[in-house]
Amino acid sequence: MSYRSIKLVKRPELEITEDLFDVVTQAIPQPSEGEVLVKLTHLSLDPAMRGWMSPDENSYIPPVKLGDTMRASGIGDVVASENANFPVGSRVMGLMGLTEYVISNGDNLNQIPKEVPAEAILSVIALPGITAYHGVFEVLKPEAGQTLIITAAAGSVGSLVGQMAKNMGLTVIGVAGSDEKCQWLTSELGFDHAINYKDADFVTQLEQATPNGIDLFFENTGGTAQAPIFDRMNPHGRIAVCGLIADYQKAEPAPGPSWVGIIKRRLTIQGFTMPDHFHRIPEYGQALGAMLAKGELKYRAHVLYGIESATSGINLLFEGKNQGKLIVEL
Amino acid sequence: MSYRSIKLVKRPELEITEDLFDVVTQAIPQPSEGEVLVKLTHLSLDPAMRGWMSPDENSYIPPVKLGDTMRASGIGDVVASENANFPVGSRVMGLMGLTEYVISNGDNLNQIPKEVPAEAILSVIALPGITAYHGVFEVLKPEAGQTLIITAAAGSVGSLVGQMAKNMGLTVIGVAGSDEKCQWLTSELGFDHAINYKDADFVTQLEQATPNGIDLFFENTGGTAQAPIFDRMNPHGRIAVCGLIADYQKAEPAPGPSWVGIIKRRLTIQGFTMPDHFHRIPEYGQALGAMLAKGELKYRAHVLYGIESATSGINLLFEGKNQGKLIVEL
Repeated sequence: MSYRSIKLVKRPELEITEDLFDVVTQAIPQPSEGEVLVKLTHLSLDPAMRGWMSPDENSYIPPVKLGDTMRASGIGDVVASENANFPVGSRVMGLMGLTEYVISNGDNLNQIPKEVPAEAILSVIALPGITAYHGVFEVLKPEAGQTLIITAAAGSVGSLVGQMAKNMGLTVIGVAGSDEKCQWLTSELGFDHAINYKDADFVTQLEQATPNGIDLFFENTGGTAQAPIFDRMNPHGRIAVCGLIADYQKAEPAPGPSWVGIIKRRLTIQGFTMPDHFHRIPEYGQALGAMLAKGELKYRAHVLYGIESATSGINLLFEGKNQGKLIVEL
Repeated sequence: MSYRSIKLVKRPELEITEDLFDVVTQAIPQPSEGEVLVKLTHLSLDPAMRGWMSPDENSYIPPVKLGDTMRASGIGDVVASENANFPVGSRVMGLMGLTEYVISNGDNLNQIPKEVPAEAILSVIALPGITAYHGVFEVLKPEAGQTLIITAAAGSVGSLVGQMAKNMGLTVIGVAGSDEKCQWLTSELGFDHAINYKDADFVTQLEQATPNGIDLFFENTGGTAQAPIFDRMNPHGRIAVCGLIADYQKAEPAPGPSWVGIIKRRLTIQGFTMPDHFHRIPEYGQALGAMLAKGELKYRAHVLYGIESATSGINLLFEGKNQGKLIVEL
């Protein structure tokens, strides 16, 4: 019996191309003492994977070594076990990689309930959900009545951030890259406004949607929307810098706004990445599960099929072409 | 009996020029019920005054109205009083303006001890001291063993920030604009290193002075030093943005660094200005007075003489030509 896994064999220059990866077929191994064999059913494709492909001494997590299985989170079933904590039949989630099977000692696996669909878990309780939860409750710390703006608002993180804020009584404005996405944000998720950053009159629409300025800014993209949003920040505003997807594939990232505005409006800007906070996953997961069970968080999944679809599929994220959480079903 | 005061009659385009001001001579008034007449002895010239001259809806304090006395802090003696809280002979400090005499209802006056020299009060306990104290203890929150870098380190705020941090066990690096200032920082104030940002090998010197990177950055200037310092920030570093004196007289302030670094290194950047925190002046003043009494804070004052010297004197700040806290003695 054999399985396939995707190895990173070359580092990207700028874009992610097929030649960075090898699809390798190997014999399925058996777990040793303390280990389990997981058969993956769903892989998660996330923007963070771009960073994991490139060496950077300042990055928050070491890059994937050339020749190793590409890092990715996913869901699977324990099909052979020599570890009493994860008996055969356990459903598990973790950073298991772009692979059909994996051997694990269980250290970075979390058991998940079998009755919740994998799409719901990867869309709400996995990386997107804990990122949104941390950004909202630990970084932005919103208060009812404030105005929050979110870039990549229709993305897997942004859509959850906006719903959490709406549930707390904020005015929420989403910025997205297509009219279809904007429509989804207002009609399905209850955002107060949604603006397509590609519109020629984006700045005018932004002014009209934020007559009282902007108190909180959840930044996922960088790019052309950043400066006009920054210029509308209110005194004592807070900015959570979660992602800059518009810059990840540029040789020279765009400069940020002058710091004069940071003083004049006494802003706080805070960058965060989740590996610093993985120890809080159980706590965040419980809170997210409760929100999901109460119907407070809607999501949509964009599902690709078969492990081969992963390497080209990740580019959908950088092109803004995915509609919802990008998942590969195996 | 008459007195002179300096009125703002024109707003600056970029630089501060003599024609922005009129020196007006008026008869000395007498206080009404609840008021006091203060005869000023010392005026403080501070970079913040540049901002007070220009209208900006986002600024933290309203601009000075055209025709009004230019705002400035100072020290004086109560020479006539109809307010029991401030009997004749009281020594007071406050935002009394560029003037030889002023009528006040006492609302924004603080009584100060007569035995402490005015230079010590304006250099340590007035705006520079409370700014340094707030920036260190409320924004940067340093811990022993960390590395702190300060721009305009020989300035009235920066020199106090560095001394407070040294007293807490940090490694402190100062950036200043002359070798004389750098010499003063290391030999008199005990900074670990001081670097002249005008040196051609500034970046190399910076690397050598910060072998373990930079944890905390107290930013007073902007300009060419900002980007190389930003690039050496350690993960979870904190930046207090207090001033950007290099940008205040530019038509177009320089852009800031890309926000990619904010994410990768999970930085927190916080702007602050003191009018938000004036209610804490009594508390901060007490702490600063105690530090001063214990000999923990050295200062130097650059004294000009006569009210006419105030309007040209303020430019010394923007040219980096003052050596110590800039004070006008009347």
